[in-house]
Amino acid sequence: MNNQPIGVFDSGLGGLTVLKELCAILPNEQMVYFGDTGRVPYGNRSREIILKYARQDIAFLRSHEVKLIVVACGTVSSVLTKDYRNSQDIPLITMIDPAAKAAAQKSRNKRIGVIATAATIGSHGYEKALNALDENIVVKGVACPLLVPIIENGWIAKDNMVARLTVREYLSAFASSDIDTLIMGCTHYPILAPVIQEEIDQLMGRHVTLINLGQEAALYVKNYLNAHAMLTSRQKGDCAYYVSDEPMGFEETASVFLGENLNGKAKRVEIELY
Amino acid sequence: MNNQPIGVFDSGLGGLTVLKELCAILPNEQMVYFGDTGRVPYGNRSREIILKYARQDIAFLRSHEVKLIVVACGTVSSVLTKDYRNSQDIPLITMIDPAAKAAAQKSRNKRIGVIATAATIGSHGYEKALNALDENIVVKGVACPLLVPIIENGWIAKDNMVARLTVREYLSAFASSDIDTLIMGCTHYPILAPVIQEEIDQLMGRHVTLINLGQEAALYVKNYLNAHAMLTSRQKGDCAYYVSDEPMGFEETASVFLGENLNGKAKRVEIELY
Repeated sequence: MNNQPIGVFDSGLGGLTVLKELCAILPNEQMVYFGDTGRVPYGNRSREIILKYARQDIAFLRSHEVKLIVVACGTVSSVLTKDYRNSQDIPLITMIDPAAKAAAQKSRNKRIGVIATAATIGSHGYEKALNALDENIVVKGVACPLLVPIIENGWIAKDNMVARLTVREYLSAFASSDIDTLIMGCTHYPILAPVIQEEIDQLMGRHVTLINLGQEAALYVKNYLNAHAMLTSRQKGDCAYYVSDEPMGFEETASVFLGENLNGKAKRVEIELY
Repeated sequence: MNNQPIGVFDSGLGGLTVLKELCAILPNEQMVYFGDTGRVPYGNRSREIILKYARQDIAFLRSHEVKLIVVACGTVSSVLTKDYRNSQDIPLITMIDPAAKAAAQKSRNKRIGVIATAATIGSHGYEKALNALDENIVVKGVACPLLVPIIENGWIAKDNMVARLTVREYLSAFASSDIDTLIMGCTHYPILAPVIQEEIDQLMGRHVTLINLGQEAALYVKNYLNAHAMLTSRQKGDCAYYVSDEPMGFEETASVFLGENLNGKAKRVEIELY
């Protein structure tokens, strides 16, 4: 039993899709969320800069005495090495292993696609994780740098032609790949899942299984806490929100992600001091 | 006569369109360019964070003993107050005044449109500058948050349907405004000028004059240096490039903006130390 909170961080808003899944599956746990809105997006930056920012994000959450940290950012998950994770005395749960495990279980033909930011695709993190599970799995990754800006711009309706054409253009790279499973390797992407599902099904001429990072990670965290006797004894959880830019803009968009109004709940942090 | 260099900065790559105009009109001057690629984009951030970043960018350029600073970023130009500019003992040339002056001269019906980032439009900087020149000018501003990511993604060809539909969607806000002049209030936008020109002309049913920030600012800087006897006596200028993320990615995209290969020329700076 452990009543310390769970820390969750992302470069900005995408991690809220993970937080939502965590709160649904672990409603009694306290959560601390940090979104680095002053330096978002991470996905097109170099590995070195992403690591520097991630270390500060982790140091901030640790100042809240969290018992476990969920790296709710596909990009950071793909650049944090095992050595770095092992150097911390609390568990750091990244997005990659839970999603890779789910994809490997669900794919029947061992042909798996990954869509993500340029940094995530460039790291080959999913490829390594999938091939560690089964060396016969063939992985094809496609960088989709415009999807995060489009989602943060709110152009997410199924009939938005800019979102649809952008998704179609990126997915066309899978035309000759025969994938039956597609990992949405960025925590923003579930917001566009209806469009992605329709476009990939139409392209491949059959149903393709989408993997949602947040769903898989939340399940993984629950199992981990349970196995290590680290679940809380509280009766009801809550979440504290912190961001590195002005909270108002964050709160507005967060309500779209969470379906809940955060009026005045988010606080500003000087993340460069951590 | 003054042989110190001219400093130029932007949140990332957009300022290169201004640098190109400066180098063309002032080929003998030394230039120092800083692109804050580790924290780009600025356009959706709060005023407070933009000012903090801008102060560091300016401090870095001042460490190179520049004689004048060109704020080659529409967003920073729109939030730097006159008080702040006057507090510096070297001139800070922003994008707004030169562009506003040109637009006021070229518009015949005194109906002027502005497209820019959310921060620039929210600041009403062009509106204030234009009405200071002529209080009868009617200004309509439209925020276009997706244009910078689309340009940095390289989807800039005239037949790219995502770029075209996005431009068309944003420009549709001018349908009932009767503008004859449109300020491209972000230094990235000249890269998409062919698409913007076609779409605005078609929408308005006549030729609309586009205002390019870099062209107007370069002319303004030349006149300023001349009037203050600050032109260089050198015979040939050159430019030093600094960025806050890994230089390689910058150099690749910079060559598209400049039509020149920067192989190995750009250096990395820890901007948070300034």
